[in-house]
Amino acid sequence: MEKDAIILNTPHNPLGKVYTKEELQIIADLCIKYDTLCISDEVYEWLVYSGNKHFKIATFPGMWERTITIGSAGKTFSVTGWKIGWSIGPNHLIKHLQTIQQNTIYTCATPLQEALAQAFWIDIKRMDDPECYFNSLPKELEVKRDRMVCLLESVGLKAIVPDGGYFIIADVSLLDADLSDMKDNEPYDYKFVKWMTKNKKLSAIPVSAFCNSETKLQFEKFVRFCFIKKDSTLDAAEEIIRAWNMQKS
Amino acid sequence: MEKDAIILNTPHNPLGKVYTKEELQIIADLCIKYDTLCISDEVYEWLVYSGNKHFKIATFPGMWERTITIGSAGKTFSVTGWKIGWSIGPNHLIKHLQTIQQNTIYTCATPLQEALAQAFWIDIKRMDDPECYFNSLPKELEVKRDRMVCLLESVGLKAIVPDGGYFIIADVSLLDADLSDMKDNEPYDYKFVKWMTKNKKLSAIPVSAFCNSETKLQFEKFVRFCFIKKDSTLDAAEEIIRAWNMQKS
Repeated sequence: MEKDAIILNTPHNPLGKVYTKEELQIIADLCIKYDTLCISDEVYEWLVYSGNKHFKIATFPGMWERTITIGSAGKTFSVTGWKIGWSIGPNHLIKHLQTIQQNTIYTCATPLQEALAQAFWIDIKRMDDPECYFNSLPKELEVKRDRMVCLLESVGLKAIVPDGGYFIIADVSLLDADLSDMKDNEPYDYKFVKWMTKNKKLSAIPVSAFCNSETKLQFEKFVRFCFIKKDSTLDAAEEIIRAWNMQKS
Repeated sequence: MEKDAIILNTPHNPLGKVYTKEELQIIADLCIKYDTLCISDEVYEWLVYSGNKHFKIATFPGMWERTITIGSAGKTFSVTGWKIGWSIGPNHLIKHLQTIQQNTIYTCATPLQEALAQAFWIDIKRMDDPECYFNSLPKELEVKRDRMVCLLESVGLKAIVPDGGYFIIADVSLLDADLSDMKDNEPYDYKFVKWMTKNKKLSAIPVSAFCNSETKLQFEKFVRFCFIKKDSTLDAAEEIIRAWNMQKS
């Protein structure tokens, strides 16, 4: 039996949007109305900043039996090289993922699985404790986010403050960078990040890389900065940005 | 500049063949004559049994600059879930693998890389010691190989004794198993392993799964047994095979 499915991503990468309960209710209602599966990518579920709250769409009435919720050890515990994740869902859906797993990934590294289980065990028992990694990481990152937003705005990059996740999207078109030396056969954001990496020693990801050909043009003025960095790296970025700003004025 | 390449695999999976120095010299001469790259899959390099010796084709004159040698932590240290490997070759070839790595795998799990480095460090310092894993593992496996060969032959499966690797190929056509209950749209070896798994609770891999459509027919009388198993698992296999044998006679 064929079924339609949608992919939901909250907190969203690269946009940093955390869907509200009301927005998710609209999506849930549509999934139920049109008998649609929901693949819910919630890998940044714990990285949500003040004033926002993450909701799992699988907990909405009528959604459990049609939802696969995806999580990530890399994103939850800042171990992105480990490549262990999980899918949560009803047996009638998960059994198909087990078939795929068996025939693609086949197996995970057991020492890392054990470490992940221990990490969960420790933090689930202290969910109300500020030391709990689910609480301490977003707190730590919110400071970095705010610092990065100020820095970017100080050189005229209009930053979109993210509700959640690791990333800040910034409109770089106001900067009016001289990209005349860059090859011409690429979208503006590709040229901009190459120019910035080369000339300013600061790197970012072009947002149009996330877009299909129909939407690419709408996003080519934006680049994605990552702020889950050591303070010393942010210090270095600040220095670069300050020098850049002085050069401009 | 386009170049041809061959893929070499010694010790060979699934055939268990370890190429001799003379055979490799012929391959090396051809690579040089036709200016061909050699991708040498040597993941079973340490699993070589008495009377055989593994040679790295990259060490043959004129081969280093055209060879990428592939190794595997999973196969070398029996940690197949770890999925860490390595490629050895000249900079002008490896740099392209680095580009691929950066854009596919991206990163490995650093705790496992560290463990692997430590494991190498320990064993490289004791290469002449029988305790060295490079020596102890093939010794341990050779006993299991010989036991498995005897067992398979005791039920009329003609086994091809492997020079190296984890696997034994056996000709199962002599058994004349009654596969009339199996679906008809599959090669003989597929039907046989499904029949054996279901009726004998013993599993194996159909060798024609490794073949392209041109050679499939030549190999469909063969299945691949794995003998890197705990002794208790081999005991259980022995019991199954003995019962099978008694049933037949």
